[in-house]
Amino acid sequence: MGRAAREASRTMARADTEVKNRALAAIAAELEANRIELAKANAADMQAGRERGLDAALLDRLELNDERIDGMIEGLIQVADLPDPVGEIEDLCYRPSGIQVGKMRVPLGVVGIIYESRPNVTIDAASLCLKSGNATILRGGSEALQSNRAIAACISAGLREAGLPQTAVQVVDTSDRAAVGALITMPDYVDVIVPRGGTGLIERVSREASVPVIKHLHGVCHVYIDDLADEQKAFEIALNAKTHRYGVCNAMETLLVAEAIAGKILPRLAEAYTLKGVELRGCERSREIWPQINVASDSDWSEEYLAPILAIRVVADMDGAMDHIARYGSGHTEAIVTQDYSRSRRFLAEVDASSVIINASTRFADGFEYGLGAEIGISTDKIHARGPVGLEGLTSQKWIVLGDGHIRR
Amino acid sequence: MGRAAREASRTMARADTEVKNRALAAIAAELEANRIELAKANAADMQAGRERGLDAALLDRLELNDERIDGMIEGLIQVADLPDPVGEIEDLCYRPSGIQVGKMRVPLGVVGIIYESRPNVTIDAASLCLKSGNATILRGGSEALQSNRAIAACISAGLREAGLPQTAVQVVDTSDRAAVGALITMPDYVDVIVPRGGTGLIERVSREASVPVIKHLHGVCHVYIDDLADEQKAFEIALNAKTHRYGVCNAMETLLVAEAIAGKILPRLAEAYTLKGVELRGCERSREIWPQINVASDSDWSEEYLAPILAIRVVADMDGAMDHIARYGSGHTEAIVTQDYSRSRRFLAEVDASSVIINASTRFADGFEYGLGAEIGISTDKIHARGPVGLEGLTSQKWIVLGDGHIRR
Repeated sequence: MGRAAREASRTMARADTEVKNRALAAIAAELEANRIELAKANAADMQAGRERGLDAALLDRLELNDERIDGMIEGLIQVADLPDPVGEIEDLCYRPSGIQVGKMRVPLGVVGIIYESRPNVTIDAASLCLKSGNATILRGGSEALQSNRAIAACISAGLREAGLPQTAVQVVDTSDRAAVGALITMPDYVDVIVPRGGTGLIERVSREASVPVIKHLHGVCHVYIDDLADEQKAFEIALNAKTHRYGVCNAMETLLVAEAIAGKILPRLAEAYTLKGVELRGCERSREIWPQINVASDSDWSEEYLAPILAIRVVADMDGAMDHIARYGSGHTEAIVTQDYSRSRRFLAEVDASSVIINASTRFADGFEYGLGAEIGISTDKIHARGPVGLEGLTSQKWIVLGDGHIRR
Repeated sequence: MGRAAREASRTMARADTEVKNRALAAIAAELEANRIELAKANAADMQAGRERGLDAALLDRLELNDERIDGMIEGLIQVADLPDPVGEIEDLCYRPSGIQVGKMRVPLGVVGIIYESRPNVTIDAASLCLKSGNATILRGGSEALQSNRAIAACISAGLREAGLPQTAVQVVDTSDRAAVGALITMPDYVDVIVPRGGTGLIERVSREASVPVIKHLHGVCHVYIDDLADEQKAFEIALNAKTHRYGVCNAMETLLVAEAIAGKILPRLAEAYTLKGVELRGCERSREIWPQINVASDSDWSEEYLAPILAIRVVADMDGAMDHIARYGSGHTEAIVTQDYSRSRRFLAEVDASSVIINASTRFADGFEYGLGAEIGISTDKIHARGPVGLEGLTSQKWIVLGDGHIRR
């Protein structure tokens, strides 16, 4: 499979935008035409999952209903509409030697995606890799094997219709866990691995991979309410960052409040959170201000709850907040609410995270909100791709030199 | 050391350009003031090296004479003159939600450099990391321990004079090989490793590191002379690419010539190479044209000679050349000589290497020639930094969001 992918990657790298878009449209049409087959395959997976005693959350993610098939089709059309990053030339300029030097955007080559139960990831990942000119090897969860096979058949048919090699998107058709081990240790055939799933999967892949990994670990995001914050903005942002959605990586998990404003803003926020059913766990100082807050233990500061639970800490000032973030933050998304110009400038420059936000909700840290279109994940790494990873994150740049007989003197 | 580096990296990340430049100038002044100490320390290393029976090439690289000290001082001044990449904001624009989104360039954090005998690398690496706002841990070769200690003392003094933490540049002061193992397996404290040295070192580091590695493996570079090449340009470029310098990674190692032009250009080139003392090893077809060419074995196509030896292969056409490059190239630098517009366009788009060159010598693939200033190495990876790695390659970008009370609807 690795060799076939490497071979296909050369064809994909030079495929015209129009051909790639035709393949995306053809795959969408195949999904539309095979709704019954997809439903059957998924029903078999669901049945097997129930028999194996998978929990309700897992079964929900596994399900491929009509609405989710609509979503996959919609996703394919959206990716086809995105501009093709391949071949873009940047910064081309003449050098004193007379040569022209610039950078050209090119596909990474072969992208391996390892993911868990949700079968719609098969289409999301395949479409982004295809548009960015990469070959892909997809390894889904064993519980979704039948669904992924049915989706893979649609992808193959779509590629064939567009005249692209069917090996451009390969789905690992085995539930053997050794397949993951093989995929992440063949740097000659795979250029990058993107694991998508729980922390266990991502940590295992990162630890064992000899291929570079674009990964998203935790999202322990903070909002810091500065004492020079506009109170109403602070209230709305802190509420939105926690309660807009709970199970997402860009939700706030810890609220930091400056001592000088805590007495005013915390009671108002605590009431609003409680009305929404959010459990509060706070430091001692926060509990003096609002006694209904539960006691936070030290482990709460590093917790990614993904649930209606919020840790609260009163800090002396912005430096205290930045120290807390440097120590407990996961480098995902950090926000400050302040009206002070100098502090906003410092926070922006000094906080080390994939997204740093001034006076807006952490929920904006997202590929669609940033204008990337679909995203393959949100990277908490600093190397290569950081933050929401769209088409550009699946590409690299090479240097190009245009001469006319130039030699080095 | 890791913890101290991580701590220092926060200070370095927010250090003003002027302070960093002052530190670079102070280190240069320290080197100037301590020439005698540097010479003494180096003499001790040289003596120990001779006693241990190091070969002449190694001893030459180990030597720190006045000229090389001049070079280090000159390098510091040049790096101080380069623009500071930290804090640059790109692509800041309004999104439909009303927020402004852009990207800000930031240091990677802590950079670990592992290198072999040449003590001047200590200054090269330290200066680039310092200017790009990173903390550094430097691990030089055991044979240069005394020299590196003396250089480290100058760096410490310079940092202190500029008011920067002395832990911003730490030199591992032990010849214990276990130190390398520790350095490359602490992702919590080190953000990226740059190994500089022989293939053995780089392969070991890549294999064992759990920290991302920016590496330069082989430079098996090709020049392809197309049948539609200008003969004189082809002659000059092919000669320059091989003979301008032999021991460098961007020297041509294999010459590919189109069948239809081989009879005309190969004899002329073969004579010129022979005059320069270059040993030629060719395919059967090349030997029919010029019988003095030695027989190439299959291993010659993957060889990085770094010496006056050249492999020569006659190929059917540009597709044959691109197939050869895809199979045997190391992804470093590939050049074509052709007057044909469509072929140059295809070669540029389709060849997968860190530098792709049209009608110029492979010797141009270099940080100074590209206008980056000093380089920390030439990356043959596709992830993060590719080709010559200067200050920008030692940085990352974070997303920044500027709102004014915006929440997600």
